[in-house]
Amino acid sequence: MITGDMARKREAALRKVTDAIKLHGGTTLLATGITGDDSRLALAAVQAGARLLEPNHPAIALARGYQGVTSMHAAEDVRHQVPMEEMLRVTAGVRAAVGRDIYITVGVPGSFAETLPTPLTDEQVCALSRAGADGIHAHKTTFEDLKDVVDLCHKYGLLVDAYIAHPSDRHLFGIPAGAPAEVAEAAKMMQEIGVDLIGLMTGMSYEGVAAGEIAPVVRQRLEAMLKAVTVPTLAEGGINVTNFRAFMGTGVSILVVGTAFDDIARKAVTDTVGVFLRR
Amino acid sequence: MITGDMARKREAALRKVTDAIKLHGGTTLLATGITGDDSRLALAAVQAGARLLEPNHPAIALARGYQGVTSMHAAEDVRHQVPMEEMLRVTAGVRAAVGRDIYITVGVPGSFAETLPTPLTDEQVCALSRAGADGIHAHKTTFEDLKDVVDLCHKYGLLVDAYIAHPSDRHLFGIPAGAPAEVAEAAKMMQEIGVDLIGLMTGMSYEGVAAGEIAPVVRQRLEAMLKAVTVPTLAEGGINVTNFRAFMGTGVSILVVGTAFDDIARKAVTDTVGVFLRR
Repeated sequence: MITGDMARKREAALRKVTDAIKLHGGTTLLATGITGDDSRLALAAVQAGARLLEPNHPAIALARGYQGVTSMHAAEDVRHQVPMEEMLRVTAGVRAAVGRDIYITVGVPGSFAETLPTPLTDEQVCALSRAGADGIHAHKTTFEDLKDVVDLCHKYGLLVDAYIAHPSDRHLFGIPAGAPAEVAEAAKMMQEIGVDLIGLMTGMSYEGVAAGEIAPVVRQRLEAMLKAVTVPTLAEGGINVTNFRAFMGTGVSILVVGTAFDDIARKAVTDTVGVFLRR
Repeated sequence: MITGDMARKREAALRKVTDAIKLHGGTTLLATGITGDDSRLALAAVQAGARLLEPNHPAIALARGYQGVTSMHAAEDVRHQVPMEEMLRVTAGVRAAVGRDIYITVGVPGSFAETLPTPLTDEQVCALSRAGADGIHAHKTTFEDLKDVVDLCHKYGLLVDAYIAHPSDRHLFGIPAGAPAEVAEAAKMMQEIGVDLIGLMTGMSYEGVAAGEIAPVVRQRLEAMLKAVTVPTLAEGGINVTNFRAFMGTGVSILVVGTAFDDIARKAVTDTVGVFLRR
């Protein structure tokens, strides 16, 4: 009895995304890290023009000092301990702060590659959707698991953004695919099973790169993905203010940026403490 | 059976404070706002030299988008809704991230001036102490209520920092005292009932001031307080990188800085989003 309503909810969510892509000349920003989960800085990002936000559980593990983790790499090892209730609180809080017109996709325990049994349930996905999410940020590593997530999310009116990883990535954040032809094949299959936004992991998560260029292999993989699908596309991992321009001509729809925001917020704090203490 | 242990815990906490004051040449920093409650930025503040942190419930109401509040002024109206469990999680998380040598004082529902009955219980104060707090940040408005808080906190090994307000302040964050002589009297009484750190509200909370000078009336009130007590002292409210130097020669031990950090973190995010979107 909610199938029609939830289809309309997904259409409205997709319009938020496509409108942002258009508004920003073909490539928009998905702001995550501290700008995705802290309502103070999520609002600042939105006031500066960001239209897409992504609260996620590893960033929240870091924000809350779970197990004393102090880096995103370490947060990946404890993120499954973040309770869904915390993700619901964060989602509702960010939504309340930024208003209904902003697209919010949420990474939660169960939507990533998991090392412990972490099922995503009907009740949880329904609750996330009711808390204000427009989508789920999925880092599943097989088509079967991804299809389960897609079907569950669609049922409750959520879109799914999912990713293609490189088999040798430090953290496996998607369907592994090496050569460009394999990337293209994976992307097509993802679109076929209903993934709403399809992304490529650049292999630079939490690292950033200094150079203003993408490695040729990343560019080839990106081009293969872009040509293979018609849905909006994303690039995620290590994108920052010095290297993002290299992605601009490629036609990718959305740049996912998290650590770059965390880093500049940290630097602002560091500099300011210095003013007070090293006067 | 814990009286001796808790006295020792308080002595250790006070040493953290006095060591920081000495280390920073007589005036140190109590970092609050986003640097008090977000483990990512609390750690950044500590790595830059801050030794004193203050997570508090209005800042957390803002961080979590409680009731959609988007300013500290609005957060003051909903802060009593922040559950103590949330304050315990934040305290434990910040402690885990920054380590045992940093002084952490916590503002919680029940330790401020309250508009609804919000008692602070033995169980709560014990739990805060066990979660990693060294002290309670108190904004009580009568000596009687403040004495209750002091006795309860001391019982569980926590210090108390409490404040003198001006009767005409927008938010009453302490014992109201107008003329410098009244301020001196209030400060002496606070010391007598056992307050461990005694502060003055500058009357500029969440506003900041552009000028590099303190208003003469604030300076006179501050001097009156400083002369009246022997415990470490604080100044709180609107202190930022442009006006803090005016407090340096006064002899005040601790500058409480929150909104200034929130503002610079926000500006860093705003500027960076601008780089991505207005290329």
